Amino acid sequence: MSFLKQYTSVLEKLNFTDMFAGDFLLTWEKERDEILAVFTVADALRRLRENNISPRIFDSGLGVSIFRDQSTRTRFSFASACNLLGLTAQDFDEGKSQVAHGETLRETANMISFMADVIGIRDDMYIGKGNAYMRDVSRAVRQGHNEGVLEQCPTLVNLQCDIDHPTQTMADMNHIIQHFGGIDKLKGKKIAMTWAYSPSYGKPLSVPQGVIGLMTRFGMDVHLAHPEGYEVMSEVEEVAKKNAAQSGGKFTKSNSMKDAFADADIVYPKSWAPFAAMKKRTDLYGNNDFDGIKSLEKELLNENAGHRDWECTEDLMKTTRGGNALYLHCLPADISGVSCKEGEVAASVFDRYRVPLYKQASYKPYIIAAMIFLAKIKDPAEILSNLVSRGQKRCF
Amino acid sequence: MSFLKQYTSVLEKLNFTDMFAGDFLLTWEKERDEILAVFTVADALRRLRENNISPRIFDSGLGVSIFRDQSTRTRFSFASACNLLGLTAQDFDEGKSQVAHGETLRETANMISFMADVIGIRDDMYIGKGNAYMRDVSRAVRQGHNEGVLEQCPTLVNLQCDIDHPTQTMADMNHIIQHFGGIDKLKGKKIAMTWAYSPSYGKPLSVPQGVIGLMTRFGMDVHLAHPEGYEVMSEVEEVAKKNAAQSGGKFTKSNSMKDAFADADIVYPKSWAPFAAMKKRTDLYGNNDFDGIKSLEKELLNENAGHRDWECTEDLMKTTRGGNALYLHCLPADISGVSCKEGEVAASVFDRYRVPLYKQASYKPYIIAAMIFLAKIKDPAEILSNLVSRGQKRCF
Amino acid sequence: MSFLKQYTSVLEKLNFTDMFAGDFLLTWEKERDEILAVFTVADALRRLRENNISPRIFDSGLGVSIFRDQSTRTRFSFASACNLLGLTAQDFDEGKSQVAHGETLRETANMISFMADVIGIRDDMYIGKGNAYMRDVSRAVRQGHNEGVLEQCPTLVNLQCDIDHPTQTMADMNHIIQHFGGIDKLKGKKIAMTWAYSPSYGKPLSVPQGVIGLMTRFGMDVHLAHPEGYEVMSEVEEVAKKNAAQSGGKFTKSNSMKDAFADADIVYPKSWAPFAAMKKRTDLYGNNDFDGIKSLEKELLNENAGHRDWECTEDLMKTTRGGNALYLHCLPADISGVSCKEGEVAASVFDRYRVPLYKQASYKPYIIAAMIFLAKIKDPAEILSNLVSRGQKRCF
Repeated sequence: MSFLKQYTSVLEKLNFTDMFAGDFLLTWEKERDEILAVFTVADALRRLRENNISPRIFDSGLGVSIFRDQSTRTRFSFASACNLLGLTAQDFDEGKSQVAHGETLRETANMISFMADVIGIRDDMYIGKGNAYMRDVSRAVRQGHNEGVLEQCPTLVNLQCDIDHPTQTMADMNHIIQHFGGIDKLKGKKIAMTWAYSPSYGKPLSVPQGVIGLMTRFGMDVHLAHPEGYEVMSEVEEVAKKNAAQSGGKFTKSNSMKDAFADADIVYPKSWAPFAAMKKRTDLYGNNDFDGIKSLEKELLNENAGHRDWECTEDLMKTTRGGNALYLHCLPADISGVSCKEGEVAASVFDRYRVPLYKQASYKPYIIAAMIFLAKIKDPAEILSNLVSRGQKRCF
Repeated sequence: MSFLKQYTSVLEKLNFTDMFAGDFLLTWEKERDEILAVFTVADALRRLRENNISPRIFDSGLGVSIFRDQSTRTRFSFASACNLLGLTAQDFDEGKSQVAHGETLRETANMISFMADVIGIRDDMYIGKGNAYMRDVSRAVRQGHNEGVLEQCPTLVNLQCDIDHPTQTMADMNHIIQHFGGIDKLKGKKIAMTWAYSPSYGKPLSVPQGVIGLMTRFGMDVHLAHPEGYEVMSEVEEVAKKNAAQSGGKFTKSNSMKDAFADADIVYPKSWAPFAAMKKRTDLYGNNDFDGIKSLEKELLNENAGHRDWECTEDLMKTTRGGNALYLHCLPADISGVSCKEGEVAASVFDRYRVPLYKQASYKPYIIAAMIFLAKIKDPAEILSNLVSRGQKRCF
Repeated sequence: MSFLKQYTSVLEKLNFTDMFAGDFLLTWEKERDEILAVFTVADALRRLRENNISPRIFDSGLGVSIFRDQSTRTRFSFASACNLLGLTAQDFDEGKSQVAHGETLRETANMISFMADVIGIRDDMYIGKGNAYMRDVSRAVRQGHNEGVLEQCPTLVNLQCDIDHPTQTMADMNHIIQHFGGIDKLKGKKIAMTWAYSPSYGKPLSVPQGVIGLMTRFGMDVHLAHPEGYEVMSEVEEVAKKNAAQSGGKFTKSNSMKDAFADADIVYPKSWAPFAAMKKRTDLYGNNDFDGIKSLEKELLNENAGHRDWECTEDLMKTTRGGNALYLHCLPADISGVSCKEGEVAASVFDRYRVPLYKQASYKPYIIAAMIFLAKIKDPAEILSNLVSRGQKRCF
């Protein structure tokens, strides 16, 4: 029981009462204490499981997932988180037309939620749409709950949208907290969030945006680098600036991978599509202009091809602090000579960081479980202790 | 515990012993007491869940679903019901050819049932086939159980067939019982089950048939209205007539939406395909006559188009009792100006009834759970009480 | 409680310590005691369930399945086994390209395993690939576990590969053990594992190979018969020879169905593709030579057509011991005049053995559950007893 003390004593000092019955849509909508509560509960759940104590808090209930884009990692992470807490993951495979319009969305959201405790949504392809869709669903089920249609109100968890990817970046952050030995150790640490070349195109912006929006909050020196034209949403840059000012950190922008990597403690080189292009693409899809989409694709691949030198090479890694910055990636990476001819990262670099990369990914199920836990449990410290005293083994 | 008393005391007065180890295929095969037992158990399960008491009766077991037609609402209702009781929903995605012939159906039914406690089937497209298929599956697993192949015998639940849609109409009925304050209050109430215009075609007949087959049993004044040519199965009309005679209610038919709506307490305007056309379509599919199907489709849409005035408008609603009959629909509705240009119901009418409509739908998971409960539990009143004394929380 | 004694007392005399934390890939990699432990635990789990005692040992956890070939029976068996033990079956629907290369396989295997206790794989189509793929996945997750990426190490269960089909043949064997009244009764019994005609082609070799590899271990007289050209893998024939020598049994080969059936106690007539053809096909697929595949298909069907007389007829059955050998099949069978014009077995023979055939299939979920149980539980005899004393009912 004593191993939980370190987590419950942290929770007792944090203020996160607003998370109860809340959603998790953007990290910058959450207070610092709330972010810390997620890390703390995630760690506690992991320790419980490691000690063969089941953290199952639900005897029944559904965890509905809506994937408007393909997913393996996040799908399994969501299924794992639901399973760990006792919910049954149930995928809603929407016909696109069925939930296209406002009123019908309200109906569908209620129809799938009669016994849903959580709804996880991935909708990351269209600028201005994904996060908005999540809010529409949240509004619909809240209204349903208030009007007596739904006995319980499912909490919304953003499994990646056009703006943020909170379950990814929170997992990333928990990884670096563990790596550097505590959140206090991150103060002043430099992280290079840089664009990298990929032979594919149209990758979502949610990871770089999520990283600069989250990591600027803890006094880190966040350097965003990309070729000209690969800007991210300016609103998120504003968030990053404000965060850095408040936390005593820094938010720097450049068009130089070299500058970003210089003396960096952490590097996160990853491809993404230019915001302007993603916006144009959204409009083209809106107009069913498939010729336009094809020619945009060609244009973007051409544009990309001009930046093949944005690769995370051994030489670049040598310029980081001590030559051994922590390399991050949300996976799968485009590895030069392995999954593509030329890509985001040299094979030898990737290989050296394989184990930490897998560990980075391993935090996601716990982060999602913690988000659900905090939305459903009024007094998490007490319930965590009760789970220990209940003593239900995960494996008999 | 006391809140359960009202349900267990009702159950003690009802005779439903034949439901144990039985199927639920057509409401009119069930005695009045059996129908009432389903409502009572459904309500009791709902109250347990609302009071955070888990009604989970299975520690393991599968709930197999076979959907031979698309479904969102019923799929989630079935999954929710299984989950609530502790069963894992497992969809069987049959290759059409695999179970086409008698003997192979017997085999497949057994192969998927080694650990199945319930099989839910939707098969509503072909006249003379859907319900027959369910009975074949039921026969196969009963035989398997008797011969020692299956340790337990899965109960069959009709999730919509060519004849009836019992989980829908039982949910509808539970909704109006709650709305009017008790089943005794329904005596003499007029319900208008009417056809309504839709720009699509070929909608199943199971809802209107199910409604006239069920609601005539409780002394209601059931008025079935549709344009000439949109007849439902004559066998079910016979059932409705007999029911009305026995229950002291009425069963009226007309070709006038106006007559049906006049002074109605409840209206259920909904599109369906003519029985004769559905039968012809079944034959065409049987002969793989795809040209024939196309031309039938055209013919039906033309036929439909002649009845655009069969719309549930504000003016029609004004003619109902007090101008505020309870509007029902199994959803999704074809809403004029919202989901189609001209449809079953005016947007303002639909919008006014949105909350009660969603509540109507919310009964379905509990109705399905009650059907399973009554087929699996010999003494439901006792087990419901035991669930309360067990005190397992749904959410810890 | 006493009914478990017969199983726990057997387990106490067997040595199967190496099964803990192990995989189940080929029966001939397992010691005799280990094979017997699987049968014993499978029987014990079945008795627990029959006595309404839940053998659930997991409070949470995933059972990941990867089906690289279609499946109904094994899919439901795996889902049932997972469900019985408390695991949630989660299918991984891989994009073929995603896991094609070594490094990416390692990554994917880890990404889907953060909370997986078992991974079941079917990969039976390509010679030299399926079993190798399973070993790659096993290696990847073991490494992940050793490096601290995975808290628990999922056990691999072979749900059919190019070499063996252990969950099928172990179920077959458990069936004949029960039929003849004990494993000791099998000594000297003759089993005819024979090829049979089918109008389809390219059926996997895993069943005949699995049968001769397993059933030669218990002193049986195993007769493998097929037309010339329908050889199975020579490595497995070597295994069968060695087994027979060690167990005091026999392994005979012939090109005569008649010789095989003569005085047989058990017959297992079933179609398969020639090993050489399957190998050629694997190479053609490797080269994307689709014309080559088509012409090979034609060639194989022609070849097959020359052996229409390899049918399990009533006349042949009369030549077996007492005219009533036990007829086995892994199902579905190609039944002459029922599922095809001419096939593996006469309709009247199949029909007479329908009930035993279904029972044969009913062992598979328990065999899979036993394989998982033995890989996850250090002291199965003790835990089985504890399950009884825990007294958790499967159905409340």
